[in-house]
Amino acid sequence: MTFFSSAAAFEAALADLGGPDATAIAQARERQSALTKPAGSLGRLEDIAIFFAGWHGDARPRIDKARAAIFAGNHGFTVHGVSAFPPSVTAQMVANFEAGGAAINALSAASDLVLKVVALDLDRPTADFTTAAAMSATDCLDALNAGAGAVEDDLDLLVVGEMGIGNSTAAAALCARSFGGSAADWVGPGTGVDTEGIARKIGVIERALEIHGHAARSAFETLRRVGGREIAAIAGATLRARQLGVPVVLDGFISGAAIAPLAADNPAITDHCIAGHCSAEPGHVRLLASLGLTPLLSLGMRLGEGSGAAVAAGVIRAALTAHDRMATFAEAEVSASL
Amino acid sequence: MTFFSSAAAFEAALADLGGPDATAIAQARERQSALTKPAGSLGRLEDIAIFFAGWHGDARPRIDKARAAIFAGNHGFTVHGVSAFPPSVTAQMVANFEAGGAAINALSAASDLVLKVVALDLDRPTADFTTAAAMSATDCLDALNAGAGAVEDDLDLLVVGEMGIGNSTAAAALCARSFGGSAADWVGPGTGVDTEGIARKIGVIERALEIHGHAARSAFETLRRVGGREIAAIAGATLRARQLGVPVVLDGFISGAAIAPLAADNPAITDHCIAGHCSAEPGHVRLLASLGLTPLLSLGMRLGEGSGAAVAAGVIRAALTAHDRMATFAEAEVSASL
Repeated sequence: MTFFSSAAAFEAALADLGGPDATAIAQARERQSALTKPAGSLGRLEDIAIFFAGWHGDARPRIDKARAAIFAGNHGFTVHGVSAFPPSVTAQMVANFEAGGAAINALSAASDLVLKVVALDLDRPTADFTTAAAMSATDCLDALNAGAGAVEDDLDLLVVGEMGIGNSTAAAALCARSFGGSAADWVGPGTGVDTEGIARKIGVIERALEIHGHAARSAFETLRRVGGREIAAIAGATLRARQLGVPVVLDGFISGAAIAPLAADNPAITDHCIAGHCSAEPGHVRLLASLGLTPLLSLGMRLGEGSGAAVAAGVIRAALTAHDRMATFAEAEVSASL
Repeated sequence: MTFFSSAAAFEAALADLGGPDATAIAQARERQSALTKPAGSLGRLEDIAIFFAGWHGDARPRIDKARAAIFAGNHGFTVHGVSAFPPSVTAQMVANFEAGGAAINALSAASDLVLKVVALDLDRPTADFTTAAAMSATDCLDALNAGAGAVEDDLDLLVVGEMGIGNSTAAAALCARSFGGSAADWVGPGTGVDTEGIARKIGVIERALEIHGHAARSAFETLRRVGGREIAAIAGATLRARQLGVPVVLDGFISGAAIAPLAADNPAITDHCIAGHCSAEPGHVRLLASLGLTPLLSLGMRLGEGSGAAVAAGVIRAALTAHDRMATFAEAEVSASL
């Protein structure tokens, strides 16, 4: 299905973002203040319940249908030796997802998420973005629409994640083009490259920033030139989720970087997003600050696959359960204060 | 049942702590390195799996039976106006726990914990510790044994928590006596007292530290003099859990403070403990550092009742699910590295 028919249609959708339901937010705040606990004592759990109330348009939001959508793609620039793993691992890990053996399978099960894996032309890597745009406009639109197509309109929560050997290099390039800073500011070890590998990553990112430096700074052009299919799919899924009022839990550095070009054009794109965690990838702290997001968890994770967001989804479930099930002071006949 | 027949028996048990199973730890580490992910990329989730392997003596530990034990007690010093709530709220909240309406009910359900609420002589508050020891030796032993009795020997995980109007004042006194520092270093707003309330709390703690300053600095004497029944029960439960090899998830400032006198005598008491979260109560950061614990979550919670630890238990379940269910590189036929 086509959700975004052209680059212009995608950018028009990005410019026209709806907001949450203010009435449901007010009702949820009132409910929180009536529940049997000192005001504010559930901290972020209260914020999460109020956030979901706003996006669901329901003062007592529930998570009945929760999806983890994991997008996979391959990258032409991996010929430059920027990853600790060969590109063939992307397809091998997709097979592992389908067989149920990866971290995201276990963590989706633990948080009761229905997993959907979308492999995007793995046998057709993007072009090497040090010499050309990663994708044609058509390929980029196809990836945006593949992402949008993974978002059913009855979802209560969407976790987004990715698999793509080399994609922390693309993520760093996206961040630098979207928010400024040097390649070195955004680069890190990814799955575990050494100092020389990081130097190679910096070189690749610097060349990409230079050869695409003349291009328009729109979200679409940035995604097309220095992104990748799985990255554009996350961007498309996140924008589509916004149109449907579905809260999105972002995973780590890559999924945040997929939103970076959108946030550079319209910072309100993160309003329906929760940063599931802060990863161990060094650029993620800076990226979260640029996106205006405070991560829910900080567990030193750096796996991708949506794994950190899936763990966060369990905390989100707990927050909504407390909001929905707790008794009020009046119901429980508890004295509210001295 | 009597687990600790005397103060001396309690302190002998504290001096004689067993350790985890080194073989199971080594096997769990080996398994983590073989699972389909970059080495170390699950961060704390890997540490948690290895920790449980050690205490369960099982390279692939599982959580089948998990308990949240919440202890409630009342405090004589509340006559000095140290809480935003009247002492009658302790019993009202115990009734709320029993009716299923409190935060810990919802959060236990979300993390699949079986909740046990132990109310300790609520109609008989401890003595005002600004003028006398909070408890007689018999009362303190009874509370320690009540805590120990809440720990079945087939538990895979124990969450400890508390309810006791005023007990953040007792907690601050326990911390100061155990680890040094002034009353002001350890005091905070608790459930939400204002600046004047905090000043009253400091005065109460300073008087308590002064009148009990001459007493022996043993764990038992500190618990007896400036603790409370629910606090001693947490100490007894934690020590009993250690004897049984049951990992304990500590909640916030109060449950950590219950362990402080034990840790001052034998720092190894925290080896089987996970700090579920860092609460918003200001003294908790200092307390966690003194206990040598790094909190799993930091969500701005400050409710007590075991609520933060219950949320953490969900993350712990996710960690063990990943450790148990993931495929190895060999099983999934994924290339381990370049």
